[in-house]
Amino acid sequence: MSEREAILFANDAFYIAFSARDMAAMREVWASDRPVSCTHPGWATVYGRDAVLASLQSILRNPNAPKFKVHNEHIDMVGDAAVVTCVEELTGRQYLAATNVFIRAGSAWKMVHHQAGPANVDLQALEPAENDKPRGPVN
Amino acid sequence: MSEREAILFANDAFYIAFSARDMAAMREVWASDRPVSCTHPGWATVYGRDAVLASLQSILRNPNAPKFKVHNEHIDMVGDAAVVTCVEELTGRQYLAATNVFIRAGSAWKMVHHQAGPANVDLQALEPAENDKPRGPVN
Repeated sequence: MSEREAILFANDAFYIAFSARDMAAMREVWASDRPVSCTHPGWATVYGRDAVLASLQSILRNPNAPKFKVHNEHIDMVGDAAVVTCVEELTGRQYLAATNVFIRAGSAWKMVHHQAGPANVDLQALEPAENDKPRGPVN
Repeated sequence: MSEREAILFANDAFYIAFSARDMAAMREVWASDRPVSCTHPGWATVYGRDAVLASLQSILRNPNAPKFKVHNEHIDMVGDAAVVTCVEELTGRQYLAATNVFIRAGSAWKMVHHQAGPANVDLQALEPAENDKPRGPVN
């Protein structure tokens, strides 16, 4: 798996865990040995692994919590960090713009920060997505 | 200047340039030799230095563009990246939660990503802010 594939895998894992309401998987997504933070739409930022996971659990307990399709992932590698920006498509053609920050943890990548907020998105007008490009080895 | 002070200086510089409608200063804030991206409230993410600066210019041309007070900066250093989360207070007691990502460029830090979105914030209830702590040398 290339580095970019590994980062997209970690990014996908967040949305799969969210959509499946799978808190065990969600705990695997987030870094466990360092500070993490999460800014849900409309919320003040939540700090710390326990508080972040509790906030996600409170959202996922709601039967109306959204499920996501993810579009247009762009990866920006910044040293041992990776910033993934993407579009979250909610049921009902609503969209959120998201920032996901990951840190390298061996061969895997762990989430350290997430922010999402409502966005007026025209899927057709978006720039080509990272995951539409060939996933060759990182330069 | 400690590393944390240098990061907060770079973060402050973004808001000072924004509030002063100073595009020359804004150009200095953003990294010039690598990809950058910006997610304004309600917008799809904008990619590339020229597009990001044009988007900021279009916002600042509006005489009703907000001015900011910044609260509750938290710094998370991730290798050569720094993720700053903070609260932007707009005129009229409106608040945005923001994520600002910087990369080390010599002794300075340059912005590579910004996202802000509306947030229900109770300033009194926020966790202690990074800039309320003594700014000693980085451990």
